[in-house]
Amino acid sequence: MTSKHPSDSLTILTDLVLPSETNPLNNLFGGELLARMDRAASIAAGRHSRRIGVTASVNHVAFNKSIPLGSVVIIEAKVSRAFKSSMEIYLDVWVEDRQSGNRTKANEAIYTFVAVDDTGRPVEVPLIEPETELEKLRYDAALRRKQLSLVLAGKMNPHDATELKALFT
Amino acid sequence: MTSKHPSDSLTILTDLVLPSETNPLNNLFGGELLARMDRAASIAAGRHSRRIGVTASVNHVAFNKSIPLGSVVIIEAKVSRAFKSSMEIYLDVWVEDRQSGNRTKANEAIYTFVAVDDTGRPVEVPLIEPETELEKLRYDAALRRKQLSLVLAGKMNPHDATELKALFT
Amino acid sequence: MTSKHPSDSLTILTDLVLPSETNPLNNLFGGELLARMDRAASIAAGRHSRRIGVTASVNHVAFNKSIPLGSVVIIEAKVSRAFKSSMEIYLDVWVEDRQSGNRTKANEAIYTFVAVDDTGRPVEVPLIEPETELEKLRYDAALRRKQLSLVLAGKMNPHDATELKALFT
Amino acid sequence: MTSKHPSDSLTILTDLVLPSETNPLNNLFGGELLARMDRAASIAAGRHSRRIGVTASVNHVAFNKSIPLGSVVIIEAKVSRAFKSSMEIYLDVWVEDRQSGNRTKANEAIYTFVAVDDTGRPVEVPLIEPETELEKLRYDAALRRKQLSLVLAGKMNPHDATELKALFT
Amino acid sequence: MTSKHPSDSLTILTDLVLPSETNPLNNLFGGELLARMDRAASIAAGRHSRRIGVTASVNHVAFNKSIPLGSVVIIEAKVSRAFKSSMEIYLDVWVEDRQSGNRTKANEAIYTFVAVDDTGRPVEVPLIEPETELEKLRYDAALRRKQLSLVLAGKMNPHDATELKALFT
Amino acid sequence: MTSKHPSDSLTILTDLVLPSETNPLNNLFGGELLARMDRAASIAAGRHSRRIGVTASVNHVAFNKSIPLGSVVIIEAKVSRAFKSSMEIYLDVWVEDRQSGNRTKANEAIYTFVAVDDTGRPVEVPLIEPETELEKLRYDAALRRKQLSLVLAGKMNPHDATELKALFT
Repeated sequence: MTSKHPSDSLTILTDLVLPSETNPLNNLFGGELLARMDRAASIAAGRHSRRIGVTASVNHVAFNKSIPLGSVVIIEAKVSRAFKSSMEIYLDVWVEDRQSGNRTKANEAIYTFVAVDDTGRPVEVPLIEPETELEKLRYDAALRRKQLSLVLAGKMNPHDATELKALFT
Repeated sequence: MTSKHPSDSLTILTDLVLPSETNPLNNLFGGELLARMDRAASIAAGRHSRRIGVTASVNHVAFNKSIPLGSVVIIEAKVSRAFKSSMEIYLDVWVEDRQSGNRTKANEAIYTFVAVDDTGRPVEVPLIEPETELEKLRYDAALRRKQLSLVLAGKMNPHDATELKALFT
Repeated sequence: MTSKHPSDSLTILTDLVLPSETNPLNNLFGGELLARMDRAASIAAGRHSRRIGVTASVNHVAFNKSIPLGSVVIIEAKVSRAFKSSMEIYLDVWVEDRQSGNRTKANEAIYTFVAVDDTGRPVEVPLIEPETELEKLRYDAALRRKQLSLVLAGKMNPHDATELKALFT
Repeated sequence: MTSKHPSDSLTILTDLVLPSETNPLNNLFGGELLARMDRAASIAAGRHSRRIGVTASVNHVAFNKSIPLGSVVIIEAKVSRAFKSSMEIYLDVWVEDRQSGNRTKANEAIYTFVAVDDTGRPVEVPLIEPETELEKLRYDAALRRKQLSLVLAGKMNPHDATELKALFT
Repeated sequence: MTSKHPSDSLTILTDLVLPSETNPLNNLFGGELLARMDRAASIAAGRHSRRIGVTASVNHVAFNKSIPLGSVVIIEAKVSRAFKSSMEIYLDVWVEDRQSGNRTKANEAIYTFVAVDDTGRPVEVPLIEPETELEKLRYDAALRRKQLSLVLAGKMNPHDATELKALFT
Repeated sequence: MTSKHPSDSLTILTDLVLPSETNPLNNLFGGELLARMDRAASIAAGRHSRRIGVTASVNHVAFNKSIPLGSVVIIEAKVSRAFKSSMEIYLDVWVEDRQSGNRTKANEAIYTFVAVDDTGRPVEVPLIEPETELEKLRYDAALRRKQLSLVLAGKMNPHDATELKALFT
């Protein structure tokens, strides 16, 4: 199975914030953004694996900036690293100013998807070869995140999580 | 006001077809696709004009191919021509095959938006300079479509619709 | 197959504009109206053909008047002309003033549906016999619109589009 | 204030049952039908009173027949009787068979609305003069229903509910 | 079949009022509340019967207090009495004040569900043994409501509705 | 400001999985579950702080078990620890078997909310005193998670993250 680049799975979901998607403060409702990111991540996972992808976990979603009613929201999703049948998808969320056209970073999120066949069983996916500096940083950090989630789930001894441990010692 | 290129307003809306968006034949419901195209066209109009855009008319939406549940749908919207305060937005809709990654054209549509200020009054927008062959073809045809809609609305004498008339004589 | 009258397929969809269906200017969102008209047109096509109808194209939707939050919106759809397996559906959209009860025309739209059997294959539908003056005008114009769409799609030589050509010569 | 006829407030809401509106048995979800009837009743109350109407109570909704996915559903709402600021709205729900065009009664429901001014305070509404036999039957029964709801709420002594009492003695 | 207590079917649905669920007065839309109560009642019916429950009727929904945008709404549903295959579900709806945490009663409603097997045929359900004073009051009143609905449907002679008749004589 | 117990903010959201909320495999769509958990967490945050809560981050959402169409889903949310103006909310998601009434754990998630005043500025919230064993475990782990997120955001030197570091050394 040939490895792929993060850009092979780049998925762009540009959409508006309509009144039906806001919270009582008139900003995009957190739950609606989580749902949109899930759809974009699901497509990116499919573009990398050519399989159905199901959400395995969501991590590190940081809501730094509220997104007001009427905004143009751009979600960009790319596979940042692959492990056997699982894929880490990194999402960047931007808000575009109508008058200047400038984009401001509003959120980041990391979703993990598992590729499955038609019966729902996990199947192997291609590996990732990062290209840009940012893709390489995210690729390296993905391993630490993977170790962290195994440690927290009690499935890995902290002392075997070498990349993660190196952060603290 | 400097003119702009169609690519300046390119808007990509990639999304899934979920069960809540299907008709009883398990294909994407026509009305849902019309609504998605309207949102994409609205963003493209905003990127061209840096103003709020309101839908003025919808024309020439051809549903050539039904889009089944679970599909990845890519809507690409670009301003094809501008007239004073109105903009013609041309939309191409593609379906992406999960296994091969190939895209098939599913629909085309033409929406017209008017740029308005905060009180809802029309405001002038930049002109369009087409670049690619396809953009030039669509730019030329936009004038004939404009004349046609004026003729059908009784606001232009058919004999003054020179570009349109040339088709038939 | 006996022909039918436009009134045989008259479909009335009276509904409110709720906050979840508005755009950031607090008017009915264009995409929501397009979706409602699609549902009404689909029912009118079914009443004429007694078959499942699928949207083939949308044309000449003119948004003349924005429809504010809280409005009562009345969509009336009727088959204006039938051609083999396709039907042109003409929609009139009215807004009703709460206090006076008066109706104002807000939009018009023309949708084309194709009647299909359970496997999705086109099937023949009854012809239309218009009765009122307005129905006759729309019936005649439907042929010119049909020719126009064939010409624009490159499936008819403009010189064979006799009814359409007559407009310009 | 001149009295009105039930037909003055007749409201017709014809719509489809789409997959997003079904329960796990593939029939129209009860909650969705209740919501549609509420919208239709709200419009009928507005047509009678020329005021905003708010739902005061829902009574006697009988779901006699499940409505499968893909059905055409016709809701007809009319004011059956008015009392000071409140209106009883009687709704009949029909399902139309695609092939024969025949309509079958699926549900009946009775909603009560109160007319309010812009600050939300109740305002008086016109009285009702029933015309057809069915309208007269419903008009008479509305008084018994009114008494019943006052008795059940402890706001009327059962012995003063003369019309209702007559049923049992 | 062992009888059950109302508390065995207690179902709590705590949720927000978001902008997409409001009416033009910025309060929770009646139809949305009816739909939420239907879902909660359906779960309570399932907990009592361990079967699929379908809505048979809705009665005595009193909207006493409007529920503004942003509110926390608590719906509590319990089976109040069971008859062969049907169950009366009593719902209490509370609004919680953010600042004090106090709850105010906003609505009450009574839904009737029928338990069905996978083919949609009614099946028997356990009887109810009320425990608290309120549960006993509702249990007794449920029989009068049952008689009332049979009398109104012409399926019971008013003189045989002994519990109901006792109210008036 | 008096401290509170996790049980003071317990929020229960019991709801169905309807067809409009499923993915193409007929299971609850990940994005819809994320949105429901966000609403429940938002209410729990409000019950703890008596303030409006806005989503600050989402972490450690593990989708262990897919949730099929028609399921009863119970979301339980409680504040697990509070830090100045932020609150960690721990969510447990259960699926209830209709026939046996047994509950199976389907998901866990951790959301962080910030309490804000009406202008959107962060305000202080009460501290948490855990009571049960599980609440104490989650309370302790919350500090490590807090340190981890500060380290990953570059806002804390890993060597100062004493609780976290202890895991690895």
